[in-house]
Amino acid sequence: MKIAVLGTGGGARAHAARLVGLGHEVFVGTRDPEATLARSEPDMMGNVPYGQWLAGHPGITLTSFGDAAAAADELVINGIDGHSAVAALTATAGPLTGRTLIDYAVPYVYRHRSEHPWPTPWGVMPKLDPCDTDSLGEQIQRALPGVKVVKSFVTQEQATVVDPRSVGGGDHTMFVAGDHADAKQRTTGLLESYGWTDVLDLGPLVCARGMEMYAHMHSAIGFGLGQRFGGHFGIKVVR
Amino acid sequence: MKIAVLGTGGGARAHAARLVGLGHEVFVGTRDPEATLARSEPDMMGNVPYGQWLAGHPGITLTSFGDAAAAADELVINGIDGHSAVAALTATAGPLTGRTLIDYAVPYVYRHRSEHPWPTPWGVMPKLDPCDTDSLGEQIQRALPGVKVVKSFVTQEQATVVDPRSVGGGDHTMFVAGDHADAKQRTTGLLESYGWTDVLDLGPLVCARGMEMYAHMHSAIGFGLGQRFGGHFGIKVVR
Repeated sequence: MKIAVLGTGGGARAHAARLVGLGHEVFVGTRDPEATLARSEPDMMGNVPYGQWLAGHPGITLTSFGDAAAAADELVINGIDGHSAVAALTATAGPLTGRTLIDYAVPYVYRHRSEHPWPTPWGVMPKLDPCDTDSLGEQIQRALPGVKVVKSFVTQEQATVVDPRSVGGGDHTMFVAGDHADAKQRTTGLLESYGWTDVLDLGPLVCARGMEMYAHMHSAIGFGLGQRFGGHFGIKVVR
Repeated sequence: MKIAVLGTGGGARAHAARLVGLGHEVFVGTRDPEATLARSEPDMMGNVPYGQWLAGHPGITLTSFGDAAAAADELVINGIDGHSAVAALTATAGPLTGRTLIDYAVPYVYRHRSEHPWPTPWGVMPKLDPCDTDSLGEQIQRALPGVKVVKSFVTQEQATVVDPRSVGGGDHTMFVAGDHADAKQRTTGLLESYGWTDVLDLGPLVCARGMEMYAHMHSAIGFGLGQRFGGHFGIKVVR
């Protein structure tokens, strides 16, 4: 399949690399491909420059947000940070129309660790906006009514989302929520191809609130396990 | 041990009954014991009148908040609803001083289902206050600096907290957070006596934010499983 991944951060890279490994044609969208390739410094999360990373990952096409979305058969993964997602996606509304957009962003009010209110430990999440009575997933769906938004992936690090068997042999739970049954089915199919065996449909997109707010708990669990960054664990719904 | 349970709702009843079953002397605190016993209608959550319930549960002493707290050797379980907890506990500060207070309340801004903004489905939680940048657990600790507050129990229904083996043979995870190591140790000991084998210390009380905000996710998972009220499931941290 032709699949688009919007964004060039660590999570987006994990998905792009995994999708190529599964035999898909992957189109990565960025705001300005030339500027992305011109960067020679690690990005704000410490990832190597994208051009350098891309050279080691053949089979990925780097292009604009719009061209990547237009190239996708059905599935578009939103790896744009929560702070920028609504604006960037709204500007890409045309080519996204009719497609399934899987969103895993957390709506932090900051964009960079240096904006984080130290000495609060990393892991106690900074403020979320929206929170509690709305969610980023719902905001994106309202801004792009012609797109089928599915909230998923957000309850784990993306490294374990694309490789669930690396945690407890894969016996943990991934969640989907959204207002479009066919889009949730496609997302579940993608997750199963990643190796997921327990995908729980939480229901309508309003459940994105709980999934995004779980960021605090995810972070606290990581700290409780002594994993400061990039927690390597999952949660299993035991029933 | 002499253990106090503050509150007469369904969760508080589950703890009181279980503690008596484990051989403890249980003192249940309520605002006005005579008024509690005089009630002849089910409470706002549909539980049978407390006097009727108490008649079937010998070994429990019903008294005031203050007398119950004063009677406890060490452990006090806060089963007062989140809406009322800070005020009621502040009024009980004297006898609580020096004791371990285990708090499982969620700070909903409503007190009764009828106050819930229908037709939003039950299960999509109403507004939390505080949320995100503060928690009820931290509010209680600030209001009662002489008390050792532990946030726990809040990530499950109390029926499964007191009987973890009823879900998946008990192979799921309970969490504690707080700023007093000895109080967390006592809480963990109590949980182990309930049957818990995986109690994860998340760290300082600031982690109560994630535990309380998990209420949305807990509710959504219950819906996803087709369990509208009183969800019977747990979550296991797989690592």
